[in-house]
Amino acid sequence: MTVDLRLAATTAAGEAFVARCEKHAEDFATRAAAHDRTGEFPVENMNALVEDGVTAAPLPPEHGGTGLASVTDLAAGISRLARGDAATSLAVTMHLGPCWSMSRSHRQALLRGDTVAAERLSLLLDQIGREGCMLCGAGTEPGTHTRFPQTEARRVDGGWLVSGTKIFVTNSPVATIFNVFCRVRGEDGGWQSGRALIHRESSGLQLVENWDGLGMRATGSHTLKLTDVFVPDMLMTARGEWGAWSVPELVHSSAGNLAQIATYVGIAEEARDLVRGVVTTRRKAPSGRLLSERHAIQTNFARIEIAVATARAALERTGRAWDDLLRRGDDDIALSEAHDLMAEYQITKQIVERNCIEAVDVAMMVSGGSGYFNTNPLSRHYRDVRAGPFMQPFSPLELFEYVGKVRLGVEPDVDL
Amino acid sequence: MTVDLRLAATTAAGEAFVARCEKHAEDFATRAAAHDRTGEFPVENMNALVEDGVTAAPLPPEHGGTGLASVTDLAAGISRLARGDAATSLAVTMHLGPCWSMSRSHRQALLRGDTVAAERLSLLLDQIGREGCMLCGAGTEPGTHTRFPQTEARRVDGGWLVSGTKIFVTNSPVATIFNVFCRVRGEDGGWQSGRALIHRESSGLQLVENWDGLGMRATGSHTLKLTDVFVPDMLMTARGEWGAWSVPELVHSSAGNLAQIATYVGIAEEARDLVRGVVTTRRKAPSGRLLSERHAIQTNFARIEIAVATARAALERTGRAWDDLLRRGDDDIALSEAHDLMAEYQITKQIVERNCIEAVDVAMMVSGGSGYFNTNPLSRHYRDVRAGPFMQPFSPLELFEYVGKVRLGVEPDVDL
Amino acid sequence: MTVDLRLAATTAAGEAFVARCEKHAEDFATRAAAHDRTGEFPVENMNALVEDGVTAAPLPPEHGGTGLASVTDLAAGISRLARGDAATSLAVTMHLGPCWSMSRSHRQALLRGDTVAAERLSLLLDQIGREGCMLCGAGTEPGTHTRFPQTEARRVDGGWLVSGTKIFVTNSPVATIFNVFCRVRGEDGGWQSGRALIHRESSGLQLVENWDGLGMRATGSHTLKLTDVFVPDMLMTARGEWGAWSVPELVHSSAGNLAQIATYVGIAEEARDLVRGVVTTRRKAPSGRLLSERHAIQTNFARIEIAVATARAALERTGRAWDDLLRRGDDDIALSEAHDLMAEYQITKQIVERNCIEAVDVAMMVSGGSGYFNTNPLSRHYRDVRAGPFMQPFSPLELFEYVGKVRLGVEPDVDL
Amino acid sequence: MTVDLRLAATTAAGEAFVARCEKHAEDFATRAAAHDRTGEFPVENMNALVEDGVTAAPLPPEHGGTGLASVTDLAAGISRLARGDAATSLAVTMHLGPCWSMSRSHRQALLRGDTVAAERLSLLLDQIGREGCMLCGAGTEPGTHTRFPQTEARRVDGGWLVSGTKIFVTNSPVATIFNVFCRVRGEDGGWQSGRALIHRESSGLQLVENWDGLGMRATGSHTLKLTDVFVPDMLMTARGEWGAWSVPELVHSSAGNLAQIATYVGIAEEARDLVRGVVTTRRKAPSGRLLSERHAIQTNFARIEIAVATARAALERTGRAWDDLLRRGDDDIALSEAHDLMAEYQITKQIVERNCIEAVDVAMMVSGGSGYFNTNPLSRHYRDVRAGPFMQPFSPLELFEYVGKVRLGVEPDVDL
Repeated sequence: MTVDLRLAATTAAGEAFVARCEKHAEDFATRAAAHDRTGEFPVENMNALVEDGVTAAPLPPEHGGTGLASVTDLAAGISRLARGDAATSLAVTMHLGPCWSMSRSHRQALLRGDTVAAERLSLLLDQIGREGCMLCGAGTEPGTHTRFPQTEARRVDGGWLVSGTKIFVTNSPVATIFNVFCRVRGEDGGWQSGRALIHRESSGLQLVENWDGLGMRATGSHTLKLTDVFVPDMLMTARGEWGAWSVPELVHSSAGNLAQIATYVGIAEEARDLVRGVVTTRRKAPSGRLLSERHAIQTNFARIEIAVATARAALERTGRAWDDLLRRGDDDIALSEAHDLMAEYQITKQIVERNCIEAVDVAMMVSGGSGYFNTNPLSRHYRDVRAGPFMQPFSPLELFEYVGKVRLGVEPDVDL
Repeated sequence: MTVDLRLAATTAAGEAFVARCEKHAEDFATRAAAHDRTGEFPVENMNALVEDGVTAAPLPPEHGGTGLASVTDLAAGISRLARGDAATSLAVTMHLGPCWSMSRSHRQALLRGDTVAAERLSLLLDQIGREGCMLCGAGTEPGTHTRFPQTEARRVDGGWLVSGTKIFVTNSPVATIFNVFCRVRGEDGGWQSGRALIHRESSGLQLVENWDGLGMRATGSHTLKLTDVFVPDMLMTARGEWGAWSVPELVHSSAGNLAQIATYVGIAEEARDLVRGVVTTRRKAPSGRLLSERHAIQTNFARIEIAVATARAALERTGRAWDDLLRRGDDDIALSEAHDLMAEYQITKQIVERNCIEAVDVAMMVSGGSGYFNTNPLSRHYRDVRAGPFMQPFSPLELFEYVGKVRLGVEPDVDL
Repeated sequence: MTVDLRLAATTAAGEAFVARCEKHAEDFATRAAAHDRTGEFPVENMNALVEDGVTAAPLPPEHGGTGLASVTDLAAGISRLARGDAATSLAVTMHLGPCWSMSRSHRQALLRGDTVAAERLSLLLDQIGREGCMLCGAGTEPGTHTRFPQTEARRVDGGWLVSGTKIFVTNSPVATIFNVFCRVRGEDGGWQSGRALIHRESSGLQLVENWDGLGMRATGSHTLKLTDVFVPDMLMTARGEWGAWSVPELVHSSAGNLAQIATYVGIAEEARDLVRGVVTTRRKAPSGRLLSERHAIQTNFARIEIAVATARAALERTGRAWDDLLRRGDDDIALSEAHDLMAEYQITKQIVERNCIEAVDVAMMVSGGSGYFNTNPLSRHYRDVRAGPFMQPFSPLELFEYVGKVRLGVEPDVDL
Repeated sequence: MTVDLRLAATTAAGEAFVARCEKHAEDFATRAAAHDRTGEFPVENMNALVEDGVTAAPLPPEHGGTGLASVTDLAAGISRLARGDAATSLAVTMHLGPCWSMSRSHRQALLRGDTVAAERLSLLLDQIGREGCMLCGAGTEPGTHTRFPQTEARRVDGGWLVSGTKIFVTNSPVATIFNVFCRVRGEDGGWQSGRALIHRESSGLQLVENWDGLGMRATGSHTLKLTDVFVPDMLMTARGEWGAWSVPELVHSSAGNLAQIATYVGIAEEARDLVRGVVTTRRKAPSGRLLSERHAIQTNFARIEIAVATARAALERTGRAWDDLLRRGDDDIALSEAHDLMAEYQITKQIVERNCIEAVDVAMMVSGGSGYFNTNPLSRHYRDVRAGPFMQPFSPLELFEYVGKVRLGVEPDVDL
């Protein structure tokens, strides 16, 4: 009889979400190795998640969702999903993050009586909830930082023409709408930040299926080429000065951000359980004792436990802090508060990713050689879990500076 | 405008406790350096805590307390107290732990209708709540592990004669009752574990005031010599086989254990704030910029933030897990569950202590030389925070093995 | 104008060896990625090394070698070779180690006038030097520790019949003689340790080509199945009690051991140079500065330098200590001295492997995403460098205990 | 029978130096605790070193020295001296560094036939060799970096008037000549770097005996106040642009730099031996086994061994690299080479200091509580060893940037 110390939901909608994720994980696990080998995107997994309503969970009930608002709960579910297939888990967070953000925007528009915005968002939410539309962020570019996209939107009649190249576009094989970070000329001639929602079938959009990563091989993180893709006005949002921070930007990325790192917690837990299974059943000569009877196995297993516990605790505490802040509307949150929690997220990202990498690394060591075989899932976990630190915002190259600046009261612009 | 990310209370009783601790911390801070220098026990601090009801907080209201039952809240308060004076904070946890435990025992005795036990505990609780009686654990001995005390209780008419030597008896200068871990001969001739509550003025009790530590200098962690000290039957409790585990033993140590490590969180937070104050106000040639403008200061400050956040998160999550378990009575908790959470505590102890040591160490580095002066509180924090890993249960020499055994399903007896 | 701080030779024979290794590395580099992808053994590389006399380097000149005796120099050469292809480098050490050992045995036999042994070894040395015969260790087995082989040799007329299974038999695709660790019944009925030199074409020998590792994919570390393989007396050496230590065993593994970890130094150096090339030529928006101008790139690059310097220093110092000890004959070395340097090797193995893993990991981070692509050699280095800790003797599961025991004067038998 | 793996001399002069250091260490050890307690400078130790010729070792024989030129050997000796008393060891390096530098300058002046410089240096060398004159660096100032002194020298008739404040002036209690880093106005009005040799009895010199450190308490690292102190022309050296690097500056600091960190190696070795003594003789209940028989003691002792081995290896390898470079004259060394080895020194400084801190920290843990007492030398080692990272050049706040810049080919000016 043990105590369940996994990440857990804090709301009823969250509990349902977590339960569904857990159920699918079992199924996904049967295909994870095959997808990793070929790099083929797990379309069947995504379909299952859509059919079961998992991808619609953050939507309001009237749009086909469950109103899942807690980012802690979202992350808890993702950590369970990642137990089965980390690539699917990571890919679906690319949808769930923006889906949660749109749902929040819609809720706030209703509250402040902005019926135009609410109506516009309603249409999008319906596409997701009723038609199974999948979202996907397209932020990263070669040669620049995510916050300073070179992808450009030029004004034309009734909308914009967007051109540029995006890489690491995770979830692209099934995405129907891409959320493209771009820049536009402001009226004063300076650059403004923009977000264009671009439909998959748009003319000028080309998906170059070139993803071939060390790990996370089935995430379909391909390259997206955009050449004068037309985007109507209602699907382009201005976000203020190019590269500048804003409360909505910081606050609305919280769900996706926390879900993203929850994937690594799931991987670490899986590696822990896998190696636990080995050492509690395998005996070795000359003593013939169970490996779990050996002191070195015990003490190194404790190191895995410490790493897993650290990751869970950091993630959960930051999730709760965000949930507290998110009870307020975006307008009631100060920029300094948003930065403060974004800094706490970056701290958490570093803690979670490094501890999950450590957990898998020590699990490899405890596995004693068998884990180094490609046929052993541990070797996949070892490759997958290393993806974390590359992901935005921020990589470790930037996050220490950002955190230091925010917490020392210095203007939080990373020197890029 | 920032977000308060400190450890916080989860109940009303806890909020009152935390607020009082915070208030006293400000006062204690004015004397901390002096007590550290001389090693004199801060009697005036303890008196203030008694007078203000802080030391009675866990008692039921009818005994003068506030019914503080949440171990998370207890730890939160202690972390605030430690900001002012870590030695006082550590010393008072030696009282608060057993005080909380007696209150829990009393509550459970009432619930199961054991009026004899309830009555006996009532007397003790009254001594604490009405007379300001101070408790103090006396577990550690030279030459053995805490779980295997050599201090012996021999049966005599109406009670026991206890003899032995205890070291590191923190809080001894003001303790009026010592909770002495001992062993007694069972009827079958084997050793049994016992706990004797020994009054300070008992004949045969000698306090050797020899505490002279690297840090935690004002905790009065002296040596206690017991020579045929008489203990009446009602103040001696048997605890089963010598060195054996039991649910009550595991469960009732939770409050003291968590409070103990909360002290180090407070130290780390204090070091962080201290160095933050320095680098945001000090300028250095040749550039004349504020130190906080320097990249190396920012990134290393982020390391402090990461360490502090890790410690807080681990402590809080484990506190909440204990609070959940503690909602059940001791009889409704399986030994394996108690071990599971004790293992989680040990994991947390390691995380908290190592991260708090790291936080202070990096703070030293960021301080740039001035922190190495004895006149700078950082040098005290550096010495104080290193005490953690020595404290029971367990030191790092044992905790990895214990955690590994518990989590691998191996009999959790550390090889001593 | 910089200072060359790479591992370097200390003797003339060593300098020639290092120069040859460096030359081949350039060539091997052109094929490394292809071999990694397919897992095909780099036979052409091995042929080139044989033809150029690299595999014969440790042999005495009269047997076609260069008398390379310094283990420091051997390791230096291997570190250069690994820059081109780590798999080839690791595979060839499996030959060079035993080749060096036989050459040393031969030299010592001559010195002490043991003409029988010298003659017997002469034949073997000739096979290597004149016929290009390749050696290969076969120590590891599933289900037991290398020191306690279950592979068994039974006495028959004129020799032995050997049966058992060996795994991780690196270099097996080209090996012509396998050095098989086995056990034989002693006259008293107890187990004795034995080493059988088994020719590839022996009846009953089957190579199962099942190597499919996370990294080191082209090392051909297949499974070797032996079923009643006949070994003539002159190719079987008894090594005393099963699992017992001996001076020759400890001393004669030094060359192979040091060469083995030198491979990881080469990988780390390669990763460092690769990422150096990227950051000193690549510019990124918004600033357009070279990446090497960024503080975070600089400070993290310093971390790589620290890791590389640590690995080199530890390897070189231990190499020199071995070279000093090896100036004496095996008979003039005390078992405690041999253990002392074997412990220093284990220490060095841990330092080298962990620092090389760290160097590649940080290089990945500095590479900023591109390193995670399978097309980037960094991702191969990341997989290859992780092989180190699995390799014997010892894995980290055993080495801490061994080192502790040796250095505390406790009988150095790891608890297996 | 074990192998001696301590840092060792590579020349005859070095061997004599190391032997003398070792002899004195035994004597100094008897007084180290007392000096630590009171903070009193160990004048008697310094006198013994002067009398025995240790402080004159780097001087040419004709000036009373032994011509000790190898920085590896100097460091080896200091590591032995530190075993007895780290404070004395650190203090004497403040003399030995400049003494070695002057001897090198003198040798080079003779070689290039610069009789004026040779003559001038001869006088100084005689003062050291014949009169027991003690040197001492005075570089650090509050409010600026060592490379940018605010202490100013103003031109007057026949010399200069120097004013400013220096802190951390280690060895000041016995120094007879202070080597003061200052700045002077150049002819173009810009700042130039200068070094003034100031006699202790100079008018306007005031030593404020305010050193009260966490550790290294007996180093006499007081504050030096200079008010219009007259320095004759022949004792003032210009060093080019204020804050600029030069080959001589980089090269001539090598001896003192390496000796400085050798002190920490000695501390770590001492802590290791101390704890080894404890665990190999002490038994604990309930098992009564020697502590050294426990697995956790063994594996953690191995961690100490690893840390010590790492520190030794890094120090020795860098020492040898410097000795190689130093075979050339200053004029034959390119600035980029000098930076390259200075970067290697900074790398080594970080490796040595962090590993020695780690060694003492783990030793504390293995000591099991007794090491936390002020009466146990371990607690002193814990405080002393932490001094390293504060010392110039550079603290960790600067060294990562410096190393990164040098090794990436970026102008190596740390952003201050």
